[in-house]
Amino acid sequence: MPDDPRDIPGDFAHARTVEVRFADTDAMGHVNNAEYLTYAEIARAAYYEAATGEQLQLGVHGAIEGMILAELRMTYRSPAFYGEFITVETRIERIGHTSYGMVHRLSAPESRYGPSRLVAIADSVLVSYDYSAERPIPVPPALIEAIEAFEGRRLRS
Amino acid sequence: MPDDPRDIPGDFAHARTVEVRFADTDAMGHVNNAEYLTYAEIARAAYYEAATGEQLQLGVHGAIEGMILAELRMTYRSPAFYGEFITVETRIERIGHTSYGMVHRLSAPESRYGPSRLVAIADSVLVSYDYSAERPIPVPPALIEAIEAFEGRRLRS
Amino acid sequence: MPDDPRDIPGDFAHARTVEVRFADTDAMGHVNNAEYLTYAEIARAAYYEAATGEQLQLGVHGAIEGMILAELRMTYRSPAFYGEFITVETRIERIGHTSYGMVHRLSAPESRYGPSRLVAIADSVLVSYDYSAERPIPVPPALIEAIEAFEGRRLRS
Amino acid sequence: MPDDPRDIPGDFAHARTVEVRFADTDAMGHVNNAEYLTYAEIARAAYYEAATGEQLQLGVHGAIEGMILAELRMTYRSPAFYGEFITVETRIERIGHTSYGMVHRLSAPESRYGPSRLVAIADSVLVSYDYSAERPIPVPPALIEAIEAFEGRRLRS
Repeated sequence: MPDDPRDIPGDFAHARTVEVRFADTDAMGHVNNAEYLTYAEIARAAYYEAATGEQLQLGVHGAIEGMILAELRMTYRSPAFYGEFITVETRIERIGHTSYGMVHRLSAPESRYGPSRLVAIADSVLVSYDYSAERPIPVPPALIEAIEAFEGRRLRS
Repeated sequence: MPDDPRDIPGDFAHARTVEVRFADTDAMGHVNNAEYLTYAEIARAAYYEAATGEQLQLGVHGAIEGMILAELRMTYRSPAFYGEFITVETRIERIGHTSYGMVHRLSAPESRYGPSRLVAIADSVLVSYDYSAERPIPVPPALIEAIEAFEGRRLRS
Repeated sequence: MPDDPRDIPGDFAHARTVEVRFADTDAMGHVNNAEYLTYAEIARAAYYEAATGEQLQLGVHGAIEGMILAELRMTYRSPAFYGEFITVETRIERIGHTSYGMVHRLSAPESRYGPSRLVAIADSVLVSYDYSAERPIPVPPALIEAIEAFEGRRLRS
Repeated sequence: MPDDPRDIPGDFAHARTVEVRFADTDAMGHVNNAEYLTYAEIARAAYYEAATGEQLQLGVHGAIEGMILAELRMTYRSPAFYGEFITVETRIERIGHTSYGMVHRLSAPESRYGPSRLVAIADSVLVSYDYSAERPIPVPPALIEAIEAFEGRRLRS
């Protein structure tokens, strides 16, 4: 991929490929803006499973995972198209008392639609949450350790 | 709307308008095929509430409604576009022992995209289901009565 | 998979795996009914590319593919869940003058949610369409030959 | 609505109601995170039409509207549920040389699911874009005037 001054530096501990479905596109001819959050959601779950070695149980058919998306900022760089395979790279950059920060970098390899390109960048805040008590709780120490081991560096502030 | 030989005759006991969201479209420039099932889902719930006078409780935050979609056949007639208001007409045509048949007619009034037109027709089978026992059950007599009163005719076979 | 009397017999010339995204689920806890049409759409495009050896150009960024979905009947058998990999098997069963019939069989292997199971069956009608003239056209002979070679039998009626 | 310290102050020039579809929910039982961007997209288009008096032509069936979403930050406050009517308030807060900033406030009135509540806040950057030249262009003076008249104050920096 050519240098892009709007790219973000640094390595990512995790990468996941997402195939663009035709139903992800809209009448502008490319992937609808909202779908990028679905791609980030897929990457977030895959990161979590890779870092913890546990299978994520989302929804009503299993224990609820105590990780809530509190904020996500998506910066759109280039459109993505039907049939492309988007690489979603993910890393956790900081761990606070009850929250941590996750960054994604979405890119597309060369395809029939154009050269390889940076597609979007996302910065998000996740909060540890106790669903019974309905309030944020400290990030569990075991999760902090798993994330730091996966990232290969200390992230606690 | 001009006569369309592919239209279906008869009146519909219920009508609901659904506004096409831009996110419902795909790169062909019109509403994606799968979205018509979402429009039918909206109409099905609205029909149920109108016929029974009860607010439908779908999902994990309320009593589960014992009506399962067993089959749906969608016949596509004309494309629909962003910003159009689709009229989804609905009627129940037959009530069997554990199931009943629901028909939808989707049409679009004249808009910036073209004249009024028949958009799609759907024929579906719904099954009364006991989620605890995980098996079909007879359609509840109170529901049959509510539907027949709403439709204004006897539907039991 | 255990025998299921509601299954359909025969082999399928094509199979494609689709991973269930979390965003495909709804508040019932499983995949929303409308999403199965998206899974069928993915399989339809993959079948077409496998049979013809050509990359499908859908939408405004390429030549339009002259294959319109005219009708699709989906029969729902068992729910599917987040994280499952749905196998969508596809075959073309009949070729008429301007249309052909495509059948899909959706199944899920054993997962944390339950044993292997038949998920749904779809029967659809596709129409060859001339977008300039806005009318159905005979199925192109080259496409018929490609499909029959791919299916390994004569399908013209 | 009770005071919420995380709310944002000030008035909004525009408000649009969006009905939550069942298909917008996910297996957590409430609206999926990505759908909020679709609600913002609906409000953005409605704002644009209200401020300019022009019908927005999105996609391949009309002149392309030269307004690209460059960045959107969504802050999630409370879940929203099937059947609720989300009020999406919108205002433009700043107009730069080639871009302007749009803010949304999503709230839900009291419903069967709970009291009235702040649902989410979005802050976005839109860029004026020349699709032929494929580059940002100055925000058109006529658009600036229409927005300032609609907002009732000067926004140029």
